[in-house]
Amino acid sequence: MLADLRIDIDRLVGRLAALAEIGAIEGTEGCARLALTDEDKAGRDLVVTWMLDLGMDVHVDGIGNVIAVLPGATSGDPVMTGSHIDTVRTGGRYDGNLGVLAGLEVVETLIGAGVVPERPLAVAFFTDEEGARFQPDMLGSLVYVGGMALEEALDIEGIDGAVIGAELERIGYAGSAPVPGLAPRAFVELHVEQGPVLEVEGITIGAVDGVQGISWQEVTITGQSNHAGTTPMSMRRDPGYVAAAIATFVHDLALELGPPQVGTVGSFELSPNLINVVPASATFTVDIRNTDEAVLQVVEARLAEFMVLTAEAEGCTLETRILARFEPVIFDPALVALVERTAATLGHSVKRMPSGAGHDAQMLARVCPTAMVFTPSHNGLSHNPAEYTSPEDLEAGANVLLQVLLNLASSEEGVL
Amino acid sequence: MLADLRIDIDRLVGRLAALAEIGAIEGTEGCARLALTDEDKAGRDLVVTWMLDLGMDVHVDGIGNVIAVLPGATSGDPVMTGSHIDTVRTGGRYDGNLGVLAGLEVVETLIGAGVVPERPLAVAFFTDEEGARFQPDMLGSLVYVGGMALEEALDIEGIDGAVIGAELERIGYAGSAPVPGLAPRAFVELHVEQGPVLEVEGITIGAVDGVQGISWQEVTITGQSNHAGTTPMSMRRDPGYVAAAIATFVHDLALELGPPQVGTVGSFELSPNLINVVPASATFTVDIRNTDEAVLQVVEARLAEFMVLTAEAEGCTLETRILARFEPVIFDPALVALVERTAATLGHSVKRMPSGAGHDAQMLARVCPTAMVFTPSHNGLSHNPAEYTSPEDLEAGANVLLQVLLNLASSEEGVL
Repeated sequence: MLADLRIDIDRLVGRLAALAEIGAIEGTEGCARLALTDEDKAGRDLVVTWMLDLGMDVHVDGIGNVIAVLPGATSGDPVMTGSHIDTVRTGGRYDGNLGVLAGLEVVETLIGAGVVPERPLAVAFFTDEEGARFQPDMLGSLVYVGGMALEEALDIEGIDGAVIGAELERIGYAGSAPVPGLAPRAFVELHVEQGPVLEVEGITIGAVDGVQGISWQEVTITGQSNHAGTTPMSMRRDPGYVAAAIATFVHDLALELGPPQVGTVGSFELSPNLINVVPASATFTVDIRNTDEAVLQVVEARLAEFMVLTAEAEGCTLETRILARFEPVIFDPALVALVERTAATLGHSVKRMPSGAGHDAQMLARVCPTAMVFTPSHNGLSHNPAEYTSPEDLEAGANVLLQVLLNLASSEEGVL
Repeated sequence: MLADLRIDIDRLVGRLAALAEIGAIEGTEGCARLALTDEDKAGRDLVVTWMLDLGMDVHVDGIGNVIAVLPGATSGDPVMTGSHIDTVRTGGRYDGNLGVLAGLEVVETLIGAGVVPERPLAVAFFTDEEGARFQPDMLGSLVYVGGMALEEALDIEGIDGAVIGAELERIGYAGSAPVPGLAPRAFVELHVEQGPVLEVEGITIGAVDGVQGISWQEVTITGQSNHAGTTPMSMRRDPGYVAAAIATFVHDLALELGPPQVGTVGSFELSPNLINVVPASATFTVDIRNTDEAVLQVVEARLAEFMVLTAEAEGCTLETRILARFEPVIFDPALVALVERTAATLGHSVKRMPSGAGHDAQMLARVCPTAMVFTPSHNGLSHNPAEYTSPEDLEAGANVLLQVLLNLASSEEGVL
């Protein structure tokens, strides 16, 4: 019975460990493979070797996305899974790697069982998901779905001055497969949660029903630098106070609105940043997210009003700069239900939840039915060498992925 | 009539300009002569030359304080004035220089008029008032009044690794006059306000009745670094929020208590300081000042309570470190009244006010009747090459100093 097929967790954990050796961060379990660096090339080469060893057809497109296809019994649009293998500078070994290597594990499981799916099965890794070297993040999947022209993407300069097009040529991943790429029949991505919710609630599988909308802005408050001892409060224009009041407001507003609203001031700088000097200026960032675009807009409006009033009252000027703005993404309801049902059938606790972080899946959602499977992250840690998901949870997640992909690939219409 | 004597403002402005050429900051009116550097040595040499040219007896003590004495008609404890000639790295040309050169201007005016005061008149410049290279600030005057042993002071290491004793030897200012030095009959220091109050209120002379008490602390809040998108507000321990709430509280508490209470968070840092990461820790400084020690203690207590409660409520830990703590200094009431009366007699608007910044005078106040004379600072700027006081205001301040010193030196008992 196909429903009894299970992945080999030791093989999957072994591949995760082998890939983590490339760019390994000494003394930790983590690794650093910034997009299109020598380490990324070495990681890509290893994963491509595994793809070829499984007999898959490997395609590299113009932005360096790699798509390996296991032929199906019939032709037609493939069912696709995958993620990314680039990391942040202080990356863990799971993150995107899990989604790619779990895809290969599904393929190897099928081959080992002599199962040929009806539809082709594709396993992809997309270029520069992290955005840690080249902005924006999720770049490869964005180009794959036609959200950015290839020429524009190739000209992007990284934080180290390197240019994407030249780096792709240099590492041998400037491929010839066309972008935008073919729309798959469906896309399902397995990923670690990168947050604490599943672990705290004791749940094994997240059936991800969408991605939070993101609003990022940088705020600069300018006042008047003065001596902290000799300047009466009434004669100050203190941008540090204004910034602190706004940061407090961001927190309190998110609490007031309740989940899933979150608000974070993660970066905060004063100038000249001296103990006995009223600052001349304060610069900080605001990160607010919600799954509901209407609520996100309300938060943005209330924040803007508070910022203007608070800066004015202190005699300071306010400048804001939008750094990123993405509307929430809603995944395919039937596909989310399939993930949920499959997890339950396999005996796992499961909950529907949004993703708080961005993923390649949200780009694929523009062109095909899409969903994600989350597994717990220990202590919610991610982008951290201490990132950890237990083998039991990895196994549960990969088996859900296996059964969901089998279902999707099993007939011309499938569940969709 | 002695009451008709006036200083020569052109001569005073000329000396300020000549001294400002040493360590001049190109393109500005400011200068940089950090304590015991080559620039400080050159500045000292110039001022000592002027002292000797005026026929004064020049004494250098063990910590490098320079005291020049104009003999009086009788012997006895001298009436002393003075300040410092070291500067911060981005210093203005007035600051301490004014008090020293105005003292020399008073001496030259007396000599020019053939006036020999009853008592000796001393003009001092004290070592390392700014504390910009060697901590603590006001070091020379502290040692002069016996507040720190000479041996301890000589061993102090600066921010650049240099040691005070060796630097004094190197620049030739390791003198033999004993410390603690002789207590003067009285000490009066002329200084720019370094704040905006006189200019804003349109007043020419400040009769400084004391120095605010200072409480400096560094606060470190430690929480849990997490992904800003995937961590619900209820599962966060956000030290950035706690720090922002405390900074807001510092401001609001100072406003609530009213003048002269001030409160400043001038330095504020998050780690890792990234837009999409709930910080792991926040470190900031709190500067609070009041002329009333009892009120200062209330502020410290209310702040401590708020910090503990806010950190606890967010599940964060709190560490505080006292960086400085000085009780308020109260100047001699009779001497403050003399300054006030003298300014009024000379036709200047005058107000009693505290000093928000530290000055050598507060050290001398430990051993003799002490007061200060403030002149306006344009835009309240200080420790800034753009520091400026108009020649008219400098003239007014130096003439007040002249008449106050004449009065104090005129008889065995004087006003005191």
